Amino acid sequence: MPVISLLTDFGTKDGFVGTMKGVIWQICPAAQIADISHEIGAQNVREGAIALWRAAPYFPAGTVHIAVVDPGVGTTRRAMAARLGTQYVVGPDNGLFTPMIEDARAAGAEVRFVALENPRYFLPNVSRTFHGRDIFAPVGAHLAAGVALNDLGTAFDDPVLLPLSKPVRTPNGWTAHISVVDKFGNLTIDLPAAEIAGKAVRIFFKGRMIEGLSTSYGHKQPGDLVALVDSENYLEVAVVNGSGAQVLGGQVGDEVQVLFTPD
Amino acid sequence: MPVISLLTDFGTKDGFVGTMKGVIWQICPAAQIADISHEIGAQNVREGAIALWRAAPYFPAGTVHIAVVDPGVGTTRRAMAARLGTQYVVGPDNGLFTPMIEDARAAGAEVRFVALENPRYFLPNVSRTFHGRDIFAPVGAHLAAGVALNDLGTAFDDPVLLPLSKPVRTPNGWTAHISVVDKFGNLTIDLPAAEIAGKAVRIFFKGRMIEGLSTSYGHKQPGDLVALVDSENYLEVAVVNGSGAQVLGGQVGDEVQVLFTPD
Amino acid sequence: MPVISLLTDFGTKDGFVGTMKGVIWQICPAAQIADISHEIGAQNVREGAIALWRAAPYFPAGTVHIAVVDPGVGTTRRAMAARLGTQYVVGPDNGLFTPMIEDARAAGAEVRFVALENPRYFLPNVSRTFHGRDIFAPVGAHLAAGVALNDLGTAFDDPVLLPLSKPVRTPNGWTAHISVVDKFGNLTIDLPAAEIAGKAVRIFFKGRMIEGLSTSYGHKQPGDLVALVDSENYLEVAVVNGSGAQVLGGQVGDEVQVLFTPD
Repeated sequence: MPVISLLTDFGTKDGFVGTMKGVIWQICPAAQIADISHEIGAQNVREGAIALWRAAPYFPAGTVHIAVVDPGVGTTRRAMAARLGTQYVVGPDNGLFTPMIEDARAAGAEVRFVALENPRYFLPNVSRTFHGRDIFAPVGAHLAAGVALNDLGTAFDDPVLLPLSKPVRTPNGWTAHISVVDKFGNLTIDLPAAEIAGKAVRIFFKGRMIEGLSTSYGHKQPGDLVALVDSENYLEVAVVNGSGAQVLGGQVGDEVQVLFTPD
Repeated sequence: MPVISLLTDFGTKDGFVGTMKGVIWQICPAAQIADISHEIGAQNVREGAIALWRAAPYFPAGTVHIAVVDPGVGTTRRAMAARLGTQYVVGPDNGLFTPMIEDARAAGAEVRFVALENPRYFLPNVSRTFHGRDIFAPVGAHLAAGVALNDLGTAFDDPVLLPLSKPVRTPNGWTAHISVVDKFGNLTIDLPAAEIAGKAVRIFFKGRMIEGLSTSYGHKQPGDLVALVDSENYLEVAVVNGSGAQVLGGQVGDEVQVLFTPD
Repeated sequence: MPVISLLTDFGTKDGFVGTMKGVIWQICPAAQIADISHEIGAQNVREGAIALWRAAPYFPAGTVHIAVVDPGVGTTRRAMAARLGTQYVVGPDNGLFTPMIEDARAAGAEVRFVALENPRYFLPNVSRTFHGRDIFAPVGAHLAAGVALNDLGTAFDDPVLLPLSKPVRTPNGWTAHISVVDKFGNLTIDLPAAEIAGKAVRIFFKGRMIEGLSTSYGHKQPGDLVALVDSENYLEVAVVNGSGAQVLGGQVGDEVQVLFTPD
């Protein structure tokens, strides 16, 4: 069965997401539809990009990810679809797919972009303010139902890419950054755990020091500040049974120092 | 595949909605189920009516919309199902389907109402407080699975209708009203854009004046107050990349003056 | 079609739940998936246990309930699956299934527990912090797709059980407790309505007295304090068209006195 995921900043109060599902099932009645998130901060393209990138690899090959965080809706910003390895994405060309594109390119996977120009795959009336319903949902449903990427419009190769934070190597460690604050207040750092694998480290953040990595939340006492490898193999700072964000005041973008410890 | 939508004021914390889906899949295992909203204000029938009406036209023909905003649950208020054009609705007869009924009647579409009286299509034990689970979910699932509307109970033709606000023509424009405040704080006005199409207008609201309509949010600067045609072709007042509701203090029911401008 | 339910404390912002659905559909593409709740209080196993127990009986036979409220993730706490009557559960062995297990045992239904030890049914890489994605979702999907419970690991018979509050018989009534505060602020009491059926009662709570049971919210005036039989046949205290939790300050665990009234 075709699988479609949805990620937006629409919230779930007003019925916008349900409306998109109605549109999808008119075109692709068998589609399985998963909500990834509709609570992306309003017009926070970066936050949407990271959330989609973390979830997408766990979906079946052929999944169509429809993502709409779209401050430029109704302007001349390009609407796009892409094949990124085994999966498809549909949404505004505003950087929302940056890390997925970077990963697909880095992996040497198939990467193809198409500007959405064929109104045959849109709703008959396209509003100025709700392209999620009028363009992205129907195009995504047609893709899931088997329409070829090429039929949707003209190929291009210069998608908008966000400047995402990257960790920087220092003489004796890394300067890294908070990349995600999740619902539990856990702070994901943009440093892949592989960069510090097998090394003793100290982590400095907001005037606090964390000595070494723990193997799980549960190996420390409630309230303890810990560093560990998160579920996507990045470094994470957390408070056991508590909120790292609340205790430390950490926000996306904040710097974190990781220092290698002499043995 | 049969499609069912759900709209309630139940929230998503307590499991009420999941329970309804369990009931539905016992009766109609193939049903595709879309949540329209479960964050309708508690017992705010009017808000639920508008949200359902905005989403419903985008669903496939034959969709069964189960809606439960039901302050009178357990009293003698009528439970109903209806055919409204190509779609079905199921819920309390308390006005929740008002604008859908008005539209179907105005369009000359098929409109038939049935009081839910046949307990064969209810759960075996009907509680006093959760008809969403015990009556509306099973009846909706039976409808989706092919049971005829007539089999559910006795036909009637006097559904409860809410007195919804309507715009009023003035000598040189319209007195209209806020009808929806969405998650972004955009303010939908109850004036169909067709009423002012091709005319130059000034919009007065809360001591502010907006000159003319913009074609999209993105054609103005962040923070600008704009008027535009919304995604359902009604007039809308918004703040670019901000919240009109917050900036202006607008609430559902507030009056908005629309004046035609001499050329 | 196989049915799977999900209950977690993950929230819906970060994409964790969508990720689990992606994993499930890789293994069991036809699964119907219902969200019961993802707003269980962080690491509140008791709250999750009650919410799951209330919803589960309304799901089809064979449903697999995947529940993840898991403060011990990554430690040596056991991961489990069970057959409880006609349904299956998958999650941490930390008490999350207590009332479902108690009910299945009390009913003399089939009750079998298995420790999840067969990595063939996990994702290839199991993280320390997201067993919902790496263990519970894939195991649940395999169960739904027809894998036998026995294949998942070793049988055991001593699941962790939470000490849930029970009402206590007093000389002239019952001492009972708030067991659930729902989204409307209605207060469910842990006393089965059958224990007071046909008897006149007075209910004392927070210095207030409620005389007898009402048949529904709608038979009293807005603002009235009422007692009634809730949708699972337990005693409930509510404020008509208002929030009992707000008016009375009631919290889970608070004592409620129920006194039989001389006729």
